[in-house]
Amino acid sequence: MEYITNPQAIEDKSMAIIANQLGPLKLSEAEQKVVMRVVHTTGDVDIAPLVKFHPSAVTAGIEALSQGASIYCDVNMVLTGINKKLLQPRGGQLLCAIHDETVIEEAKRTGETRAMTAFRLLAPQFNGAVIAIGNAPTALFELIKAIEAGICRPALIVGVPVGFVGAAESKELLSTLSVPYITIEGTKGGSTVAVAIINSLLLQMP
Amino acid sequence: MEYITNPQAIEDKSMAIIANQLGPLKLSEAEQKVVMRVVHTTGDVDIAPLVKFHPSAVTAGIEALSQGASIYCDVNMVLTGINKKLLQPRGGQLLCAIHDETVIEEAKRTGETRAMTAFRLLAPQFNGAVIAIGNAPTALFELIKAIEAGICRPALIVGVPVGFVGAAESKELLSTLSVPYITIEGTKGGSTVAVAIINSLLLQMP
Repeated sequence: MEYITNPQAIEDKSMAIIANQLGPLKLSEAEQKVVMRVVHTTGDVDIAPLVKFHPSAVTAGIEALSQGASIYCDVNMVLTGINKKLLQPRGGQLLCAIHDETVIEEAKRTGETRAMTAFRLLAPQFNGAVIAIGNAPTALFELIKAIEAGICRPALIVGVPVGFVGAAESKELLSTLSVPYITIEGTKGGSTVAVAIINSLLLQMP
Repeated sequence: MEYITNPQAIEDKSMAIIANQLGPLKLSEAEQKVVMRVVHTTGDVDIAPLVKFHPSAVTAGIEALSQGASIYCDVNMVLTGINKKLLQPRGGQLLCAIHDETVIEEAKRTGETRAMTAFRLLAPQFNGAVIAIGNAPTALFELIKAIEAGICRPALIVGVPVGFVGAAESKELLSTLSVPYITIEGTKGGSTVAVAIINSLLLQMP
C-alpha cells in the first residue's frame, strides 16, 4: 500500500482537495482559511456553508490572540487540541475549569451542567478573552446571559456546541449578538471544530 | 430563554431525538448504542449508516475493557475525552506517545508523521489492547502493517481517522482484517468520534 507519510505533504494535499471540492466561497481569504480547516478536521464538506462569521470576527480573533489574549474552553478536549506552540509565545493562557473542585461541588448542588457552572463563575474574567465552546450549549447560553447582563465582553466567541438539545438554539442566539463570533448553524459542531477554528486563527497571526 | 440545564436530562432527551431521527437500524442493540453516541457527538445524522462493525467488535471491545485492557490513542485529544471514571476501576491504562521525546526525534529524522512513528514503536505492546485512532490515517496504516507482519493482535481497533488524504483508504483496508474493528466509511471521523465509540463501550460494560 502506498500512502503519504510526511505531515506537511499530507496537509498541503488535503487543503488542495478541499479547495477544489468547495469551489469559490463568498468569504474573505482569512475566513476561507477557517472554513477549510473546519472541513479538514471533520471530513465533512457539507459543513462549509454552515460556518457563520460576525463581520469582524476573524480580524478581532487574530488581533486578540497576537496580543496575548487568554482562551477559555468549555471542555478539556478543546484545551488539549489547541496549538500551544503558537499560543504560548504570545503570552495567552489556556483555561478550562470543568474539573475544578468548586465547579464540581457547585454543579452537584444545583443539578446543572459543569460547563455552564464553570462559565458562570469565570464570566467576570472574560473581558478581551477568546472563548472556545465546542461541546456544551448550556455554557454558550450562560455566556450570552453574562454578556447581556454587562458582566463581560470577550474579544471573540468561537461558539460551536454540538447536538440535538439546545445547540442550534444557543448558536442562533449567539448570531444576534454584536460581540464578534464564529459559529456553525444547526446541530453540527464539536470540540474538534472549535479547535480547528482557533488553530486557524493562530496560524494566521502576523 | 428556556433551556434544559440538567446533564442527565439533556442526554436522555438527546438520545430520544436521535433514536427518533434514525428509525430502526439493522444492528444489535449494543451496536445501535454505539451509533447513537457517534451521532450525539457529531450532531450529524448522516454519519449513522457509515459506521461499520466487524461482527464481534462490540462484544470483544466490551469484554477487553471490562478485563482491564489498555487503550492506545493516536492523539492526545482522544486520550483526554475518554471516560477515566469508567476505565480506571477496571485497571486499563490510557496511553498516547505522540509527545514522547523518542517519537518526536525519530519523526524529525524520518520526516514521517509523529502518530505513525509512535504506533510503529508501540506496536509490540498492542496484543489484547484496544486501539483508538481518531486523527491520523498514517497511524492506522502502520497498525495494519504491524498486524499483517504478525507483530501484534489487538482486542479491538476503533479506527476512525478523518480527512481527504488516506483516511478513506486506510479505513477500507481496516475493514478487510479479521481483527475486530469499528470504523466509519469515507472521509468523516475524528477524535470526538473515536472517544464516543470508546465511551459507549465503557458505558456498556457489565
